[in-house]
Amino acid sequence: MRRTQEERRQESESRLLAAAVKLIAEKGANGFTLAEVGHEAGYSRSLPGHYFETKEALLARVVEHITQQSLAAIVDPDVEPGIESMRARWTRSLSAEGHDSYRTRALYALFLGAMFDSELAKIMARYNRATVARLAESLREAIDRGEIRADADVEAEAQALLLFRRGSALIHFTDPDLDLVSILDKHMTEVRDRLKP
Amino acid sequence: MRRTQEERRQESESRLLAAAVKLIAEKGANGFTLAEVGHEAGYSRSLPGHYFETKEALLARVVEHITQQSLAAIVDPDVEPGIESMRARWTRSLSAEGHDSYRTRALYALFLGAMFDSELAKIMARYNRATVARLAESLREAIDRGEIRADADVEAEAQALLLFRRGSALIHFTDPDLDLVSILDKHMTEVRDRLKP
Repeated sequence: MRRTQEERRQESESRLLAAAVKLIAEKGANGFTLAEVGHEAGYSRSLPGHYFETKEALLARVVEHITQQSLAAIVDPDVEPGIESMRARWTRSLSAEGHDSYRTRALYALFLGAMFDSELAKIMARYNRATVARLAESLREAIDRGEIRADADVEAEAQALLLFRRGSALIHFTDPDLDLVSILDKHMTEVRDRLKP
Repeated sequence: MRRTQEERRQESESRLLAAAVKLIAEKGANGFTLAEVGHEAGYSRSLPGHYFETKEALLARVVEHITQQSLAAIVDPDVEPGIESMRARWTRSLSAEGHDSYRTRALYALFLGAMFDSELAKIMARYNRATVARLAESLREAIDRGEIRADADVEAEAQALLLFRRGSALIHFTDPDLDLVSILDKHMTEVRDRLKP
Protein backbone atom coordinates (compact mmCIF):
# COMPACT_ATOMS: atom_id res chain seq x y z
CA MET A 1 0.00 0.00 0.00
CA ARG A 2 1.44 3.33 -1.09
CA ARG A 3 1.85 5.91 1.63
CA THR A 4 0.57 9.41 1.09
CA GLN A 5 2.96 12.35 0.79
CA GLU A 6 1.79 13.52 4.27
CA GLU A 7 2.69 10.15 5.82
CA ARG A 8 6.17 10.29 4.26
CA ARG A 9 6.60 13.85 5.47
CA GLN A 10 5.64 12.87 9.00
CA GLU A 11 8.03 9.94 9.01
CA SER A 12 10.92 12.12 7.80
CA GLU A 13 10.18 14.74 10.43
CA SER A 14 9.96 12.10 13.12
CA ARG A 15 13.33 10.60 12.09
CA LEU A 16 14.94 14.04 11.98
CA LEU A 17 13.63 14.81 15.48
CA ALA A 18 14.92 11.51 16.86
CA ALA A 19 18.34 12.26 15.31
CA ALA A 20 18.31 15.74 16.89
CA VAL A 21 17.42 14.31 20.33
CA LYS A 22 20.34 11.87 20.03
CA LEU A 23 22.80 14.60 18.97
CA ILE A 24 21.65 16.96 21.75
CA ALA A 25 22.00 14.14 24.31
CA GLU A 26 25.50 13.30 23.06
CA LYS A 27 26.93 16.73 22.30
CA GLY A 28 24.71 19.40 23.86
CA ALA A 29 22.41 21.89 22.16
CA ASN A 30 25.34 23.82 20.69
CA GLY A 31 27.49 20.88 19.62
CA PHE A 32 26.11 20.16 16.13
CA THR A 33 24.64 21.71 12.96
CA LEU A 34 21.37 21.24 11.03
CA ALA A 35 23.38 19.44 8.34
CA GLU A 36 24.60 16.85 10.86
CA VAL A 37 21.00 16.14 11.87
CA GLY A 38 20.26 15.20 8.24
CA HIS A 39 23.33 12.98 8.12
CA GLU A 40 22.52 11.31 11.47
CA ALA A 41 18.95 10.58 10.31
CA GLY A 42 20.25 8.99 7.09
CA TYR A 43 18.94 11.77 4.84
CA SER A 44 20.65 14.54 2.89
CA ARG A 45 22.44 17.27 4.83
CA SER A 46 20.06 19.86 3.38
CA LEU A 47 16.77 18.19 4.39
CA PRO A 48 16.61 19.57 7.99
CA GLY A 49 16.82 23.11 6.53
CA HIS A 50 13.74 22.37 4.39
CA TYR A 51 11.80 21.09 7.41
CA PHE A 52 12.90 23.46 10.16
CA GLU A 53 14.64 26.41 8.40
CA THR A 54 16.83 27.31 11.41
CA LYS A 55 18.48 25.38 14.22
CA GLU A 56 16.54 27.54 16.71
CA ALA A 57 13.27 26.35 15.13
CA LEU A 58 14.51 22.74 15.27
CA LEU A 59 15.34 23.05 19.00
CA ALA A 60 11.88 24.55 19.68
CA ARG A 61 10.32 21.62 17.80
CA VAL A 62 12.41 19.13 19.82
CA VAL A 63 11.16 20.61 23.11
CA GLU A 64 7.56 20.46 21.82
CA HIS A 65 8.18 16.83 20.81
CA ILE A 66 9.56 15.95 24.28
CA THR A 67 6.60 17.76 25.91
CA GLN A 68 4.11 15.77 23.83
CA GLN A 69 5.80 12.50 24.80
CA SER A 70 5.72 13.46 28.51
CA LEU A 71 2.06 14.46 28.23
CA ALA A 72 1.23 11.21 26.45
CA ALA A 73 2.73 9.33 29.42
CA ILE A 74 0.58 11.36 31.84
CA VAL A 75 -2.78 11.21 30.06
CA ASP A 76 -2.33 7.44 30.05
CA PRO A 77 -5.56 6.22 31.73
CA ASP A 78 -3.48 4.04 34.07
CA VAL A 79 -1.69 7.08 35.53
CA GLU A 80 -3.34 8.29 38.75
CA PRO A 81 -3.13 11.93 39.87
CA GLY A 82 -1.40 12.88 43.13
CA ILE A 83 1.87 12.32 44.88
CA GLU A 84 2.11 8.52 44.95
CA SER A 85 1.79 8.32 41.21
CA MET A 86 4.33 11.13 40.74
CA ARG A 87 6.73 9.30 43.05
CA ALA A 88 6.42 6.11 40.99
CA ARG A 89 6.96 7.89 37.68
CA TRP A 90 9.93 9.94 38.91
CA THR A 91 11.57 6.95 40.55
CA ARG A 92 11.20 5.08 37.27
CA SER A 93 12.64 7.89 35.19
CA LEU A 94 15.54 8.55 37.62
CA SER A 95 16.42 4.86 37.46
CA ALA A 96 16.49 5.00 33.66
CA GLU A 97 18.47 8.24 33.32
CA GLY A 98 22.11 7.90 32.48
CA HIS A 99 21.48 4.50 30.99
CA ASP A 100 19.76 4.86 27.69
CA SER A 101 17.38 7.75 27.99
CA TYR A 102 18.41 10.11 25.18
CA ARG A 103 15.22 12.06 25.77
CA THR A 104 16.00 13.01 29.38
CA ARG A 105 19.65 13.73 28.63
CA ALA A 106 18.60 15.93 25.72
CA LEU A 107 16.14 17.78 27.95
CA TYR A 108 18.83 18.67 30.51
CA ALA A 109 21.33 19.55 27.80
CA LEU A 110 18.68 21.99 26.52
CA PHE A 111 18.20 23.50 30.01
CA LEU A 112 21.89 24.07 30.38
CA GLY A 113 22.26 25.24 26.77
CA ALA A 114 19.63 27.88 27.63
CA MET A 115 22.26 29.55 29.84
CA PHE A 116 24.03 30.66 26.64
CA ASP A 117 21.08 31.26 24.34
CA SER A 118 18.28 33.62 25.33
CA GLU A 119 15.85 32.31 22.68
CA LEU A 120 16.33 28.75 23.95
CA ALA A 121 15.89 30.08 27.50
CA LYS A 122 12.40 31.35 26.55
CA ILE A 123 11.50 27.93 25.13
CA MET A 124 12.74 26.13 28.26
CA ALA A 125 10.98 28.61 30.58
CA ARG A 126 7.72 27.81 28.75
CA TYR A 127 8.42 24.09 29.16
CA ASN A 128 9.01 24.52 32.91
CA ARG A 129 5.82 26.53 33.31
CA ALA A 130 3.80 23.94 31.38
CA THR A 131 5.25 21.23 33.66
CA VAL A 132 4.35 23.17 36.83
CA ALA A 133 0.80 23.67 35.48
CA ARG A 134 0.52 19.92 34.84
CA LEU A 135 1.82 19.06 38.34
CA ALA A 136 -0.60 21.58 39.91
CA GLU A 137 -3.49 20.02 37.98
CA SER A 138 -2.54 16.58 39.27
CA LEU A 139 -2.46 17.93 42.85
CA ARG A 140 -5.90 19.56 42.35
CA GLU A 141 -7.30 16.23 41.20
CA ALA A 142 -5.81 14.64 44.31
CA ILE A 143 -7.62 17.25 46.46
CA ASP A 144 -10.91 16.38 44.69
CA ARG A 145 -10.29 12.73 45.58
CA GLY A 146 -9.64 13.64 49.22
CA GLU A 147 -5.98 12.54 49.16
CA ILE A 148 -4.56 16.01 49.84
CA ARG A 149 -5.95 18.65 52.17
CA ALA A 150 -8.09 21.23 50.39
CA ASP A 151 -6.15 24.29 51.57
CA ALA A 152 -2.81 23.13 50.12
CA ASP A 153 -1.12 25.80 47.96
CA VAL A 154 -1.00 23.64 44.84
CA GLU A 155 0.88 26.17 42.67
CA ALA A 156 3.67 26.60 45.23
CA GLU A 157 3.82 22.84 45.93
CA ALA A 158 4.02 22.10 42.20
CA GLN A 159 6.80 24.65 41.73
CA ALA A 160 8.78 23.22 44.67
CA LEU A 161 8.35 19.66 43.35
CA LEU A 162 9.71 20.78 39.99
CA LEU A 163 12.80 22.35 41.61
CA PHE A 164 13.47 19.12 43.45
CA ARG A 165 13.04 17.04 40.29
CA ARG A 166 15.29 19.31 38.21
CA GLY A 167 17.98 19.26 40.90
CA SER A 168 17.83 15.44 41.08
CA ALA A 169 18.41 15.09 37.36
CA LEU A 170 21.20 17.67 37.28
CA ILE A 171 23.09 15.84 40.03
CA HIS A 172 22.30 12.45 38.56
CA PHE A 173 24.07 13.34 35.30
CA THR A 174 27.27 14.25 37.12
CA ASP A 175 27.12 11.52 39.77
CA PRO A 176 25.11 8.51 38.56
CA ASP A 177 26.27 6.36 41.52
CA LEU A 178 24.49 8.50 44.10
CA ASP A 179 21.30 6.89 45.44
CA LEU A 180 18.95 9.69 44.37
CA VAL A 181 15.98 7.35 44.16
CA SER A 182 15.90 6.93 47.93
CA ILE A 183 16.40 10.67 48.50
CA LEU A 184 13.54 11.46 46.11
CA ASP A 185 11.43 8.80 47.79
CA LYS A 186 12.02 10.22 51.27
CA HIS A 187 11.18 13.71 50.02
CA MET A 188 7.92 12.56 48.43
CA THR A 189 6.94 10.88 51.72
CA GLU A 190 7.52 14.14 53.58
CA VAL A 191 5.47 16.12 51.07
CA ARG A 192 2.66 13.53 51.22
CA ASP A 193 2.62 13.56 55.04
CA ARG A 194 2.62 17.33 55.13
CA LEU A 195 -0.25 17.61 52.63
CA LYS A 196 -2.48 14.80 53.90
CA PRO A 197 -5.99 15.88 54.98
CA MET B 1 58.71 47.27 47.57
CA ARG B 2 59.60 44.44 45.17
CA ARG B 3 57.35 41.46 45.13
CA THR B 4 58.80 38.00 45.40
CA GLN B 5 58.60 35.58 42.47
CA GLU B 6 56.03 33.56 44.46
CA GLU B 7 53.80 36.63 44.86
CA ARG B 8 53.98 37.34 41.12
CA ARG B 9 53.21 33.71 40.36
CA GLN B 10 50.17 33.78 42.64
CA GLU B 11 48.88 36.97 41.07
CA SER B 12 49.24 35.54 37.55
CA GLU B 13 47.44 32.36 38.55
CA SER B 14 44.68 34.31 40.22
CA ARG B 15 44.17 36.50 37.10
CA LEU B 16 44.16 33.43 34.86
CA LEU B 17 41.54 31.75 37.07
CA ALA B 18 39.35 34.87 37.06
CA ALA B 19 39.63 34.99 33.25
CA ALA B 20 38.68 31.28 33.05
CA VAL B 21 35.63 31.81 35.32
CA LYS B 22 34.48 34.69 33.06
CA LEU B 23 34.94 32.66 29.86
CA ILE B 24 33.15 29.61 31.32
CA ALA B 25 30.26 31.83 32.48
CA GLU B 26 29.98 33.44 29.04
CA LYS B 27 30.68 30.53 26.69
CA GLY B 28 30.45 27.29 28.66
CA ALA B 29 33.22 24.88 29.66
CA ASN B 30 33.76 23.79 26.05
CA GLY B 31 33.54 27.19 24.37
CA PHE B 32 37.15 28.39 24.67
CA THR B 33 40.80 27.33 24.62
CA LEU B 34 43.69 27.65 27.09
CA ALA B 35 45.19 30.29 24.73
CA GLU B 36 42.05 32.44 25.02
CA VAL B 37 42.34 32.36 28.82
CA GLY B 38 45.83 33.92 28.49
CA HIS B 39 44.49 36.57 26.11
CA GLU B 40 41.46 37.35 28.35
CA ALA B 41 43.76 37.75 31.39
CA GLY B 42 46.02 40.14 29.45
CA TYR B 43 48.96 37.72 29.31
CA SER B 44 50.50 35.72 26.49
CA ARG B 45 48.46 32.96 24.88
CA SER B 46 51.01 30.39 26.02
CA LEU B 47 51.06 31.28 29.74
CA PRO B 48 48.00 29.17 30.79
CA GLY B 49 49.74 26.09 29.35
CA HIS B 50 52.74 26.76 31.63
CA TYR B 51 50.50 27.08 34.68
CA PHE B 52 47.90 24.38 34.09
CA GLU B 53 49.29 22.15 31.27
CA THR B 54 45.84 20.99 30.08
CA LYS B 55 42.40 22.51 29.90
CA GLU B 56 41.11 19.60 32.03
CA ALA B 57 43.57 20.60 34.79
CA LEU B 58 42.50 24.24 34.46
CA LEU B 59 38.82 23.29 34.88
CA ALA B 60 39.66 21.18 37.96
CA ARG B 61 41.55 24.17 39.40
CA VAL B 62 38.58 26.47 38.68
CA VAL B 63 36.23 24.18 40.61
CA GLU B 64 38.71 24.07 43.51
CA HIS B 65 38.90 27.90 43.37
CA ILE B 66 35.08 28.22 43.44
CA THR B 67 34.94 25.73 46.34
CA GLN B 68 37.50 27.74 48.34
CA GLN B 69 35.54 30.95 47.78
CA SER B 70 32.30 29.25 48.93
CA LEU B 71 34.08 27.83 51.98
CA ALA B 72 35.57 31.22 52.79
CA ALA B 73 32.04 32.65 52.83
CA ILE B 74 30.93 29.92 55.25
CA VAL B 75 33.84 29.94 57.71
CA ASP B 76 33.20 33.68 58.03
CA PRO B 77 32.75 34.10 61.83
CA ASP B 78 29.54 36.06 61.17
CA VAL B 79 27.93 33.07 59.45
CA GLU B 80 25.81 30.98 61.83
CA PRO B 81 25.27 27.26 61.26
CA GLY B 82 21.76 25.91 60.64
CA ILE B 83 18.81 26.55 58.41
CA GLU B 84 18.12 30.25 59.00
CA SER B 85 21.64 31.16 57.99
CA MET B 86 21.47 28.91 54.93
CA ARG B 87 18.18 30.54 53.96
CA ALA B 88 19.72 34.02 54.15
CA ARG B 89 22.79 33.05 52.10
CA TRP B 90 20.82 31.21 49.43
CA THR B 91 18.26 33.99 49.12
CA ARG B 92 21.13 36.43 48.67
CA SER B 93 22.86 34.32 46.03
CA LEU B 94 19.63 33.58 44.13
CA SER B 95 18.89 37.31 44.01
CA ALA B 96 22.35 37.97 42.59
CA GLU B 97 22.40 35.17 40.00
CA GLY B 98 21.74 36.12 36.43
CA HIS B 99 22.86 39.66 37.16
CA ASP B 100 26.59 39.73 37.62
CA SER B 101 27.62 36.52 39.31
CA TYR B 102 30.18 35.01 36.92
CA ARG B 103 31.09 32.49 39.64
CA THR B 104 27.63 30.95 39.91
CA ARG B 105 27.07 30.97 36.14
CA ALA B 106 30.47 29.30 35.67
CA LEU B 107 29.55 26.64 38.22
CA TYR B 108 26.38 25.67 36.35
CA ALA B 109 28.17 25.83 33.01
CA LEU B 110 30.62 23.30 34.48
CA PHE B 111 27.70 21.02 35.46
CA LEU B 112 26.52 21.24 31.84
CA GLY B 113 29.98 20.45 30.55
CA ALA B 114 30.07 17.45 32.89
CA MET B 115 27.20 15.84 30.95
CA PHE B 116 29.58 15.49 27.99
CA ASP B 117 32.91 14.99 29.73
CA SER B 118 33.37 12.11 32.17
CA GLU B 119 36.52 13.60 33.75
CA LEU B 120 34.70 16.86 34.45
CA ALA B 121 31.75 14.82 35.78
CA LYS B 122 34.09 13.28 38.41
CA ILE B 123 35.26 16.75 39.45
CA MET B 124 31.69 18.05 39.74
CA ALA B 125 30.57 14.94 41.65
CA ARG B 126 33.36 15.61 44.17
CA TYR B 127 32.21 19.24 44.42
CA ASN B 128 28.60 18.14 45.08
CA ARG B 129 29.74 15.66 47.75
CA ALA B 130 31.91 18.29 49.45
CA THR B 131 28.93 20.66 49.47
CA VAL B 132 26.66 18.01 51.02
CA ALA B 133 29.32 17.29 53.68
CA ARG B 134 29.49 21.01 54.51
CA LEU B 135 25.71 21.34 54.72
CA ALA B 136 25.56 18.24 56.97
CA GLU B 137 28.22 19.74 59.24
CA SER B 138 26.21 22.94 59.54
CA LEU B 139 23.11 20.92 60.47
CA ARG B 140 25.12 18.96 63.08
CA GLU B 141 26.26 22.23 64.64
CA ALA B 142 22.62 23.35 64.71
CA ILE B 143 21.74 20.12 66.58
CA ASP B 144 24.50 20.88 69.12
CA ARG B 145 22.95 24.29 69.63
CA GLY B 146 19.50 22.75 70.17
CA GLU B 147 17.99 24.35 67.07
CA ILE B 148 17.31 21.06 65.28
CA ARG B 149 16.09 17.83 66.82
CA ALA B 150 18.89 15.39 67.58
CA ASP B 151 17.48 12.46 65.62
CA ALA B 152 17.35 14.35 62.30
CA ASP B 153 19.01 12.44 59.45
CA VAL B 154 21.52 15.18 58.66
CA GLU B 155 23.11 13.44 55.65
CA ALA B 156 19.77 12.88 53.94
CA GLU B 157 18.56 16.39 54.81
CA ALA B 158 21.78 17.91 53.47
CA GLN B 159 21.48 15.93 50.24
CA ALA B 160 17.84 16.98 49.79
CA LEU B 161 18.73 20.64 50.43
CA LEU B 162 21.41 20.45 47.75
CA LEU B 163 18.97 19.01 45.20
CA PHE B 164 16.58 21.84 45.92
CA ARG B 165 19.33 24.45 45.59
CA ARG B 166 20.65 23.01 42.32
CA GLY B 167 17.14 22.88 40.88
CA SER B 168 16.54 26.52 41.87
CA ALA B 169 19.64 27.69 40.06
CA LEU B 170 18.95 25.58 36.98
CA ILE B 171 15.46 27.06 36.64
CA HIS B 172 16.67 30.55 37.53
CA PHE B 173 19.06 30.60 34.57
CA THR B 174 16.26 29.75 32.13
CA ASP B 175 13.54 31.85 33.76
CA PRO B 176 15.02 34.74 35.79
CA ASP B 177 11.58 36.38 36.21
CA LEU B 178 10.21 33.52 38.30
CA ASP B 179 10.02 34.37 42.02
CA LEU B 180 12.28 31.55 43.20
CA VAL B 181 13.32 33.46 46.31
CA SER B 182 9.84 33.11 47.82
CA ILE B 183 9.65 29.43 46.80
CA LEU B 184 13.04 28.76 48.39
CA ASP B 185 11.97 30.70 51.46
CA LYS B 186 8.76 28.69 51.87
CA HIS B 187 10.71 25.45 51.47
CA MET B 188 13.26 26.42 54.12
CA THR B 189 10.41 27.26 56.54
CA GLU B 190 8.94 23.79 55.99
CA VAL B 191 12.30 22.11 56.56
CA ARG B 192 12.89 24.17 59.71
CA ASP B 193 9.44 23.37 61.10
CA ARG B 194 9.87 19.68 60.34
CA LEU B 195 13.32 19.54 62.00
CA LYS B 196 12.65 21.68 65.08
CA PRO B 197 13.16 19.91 68.41
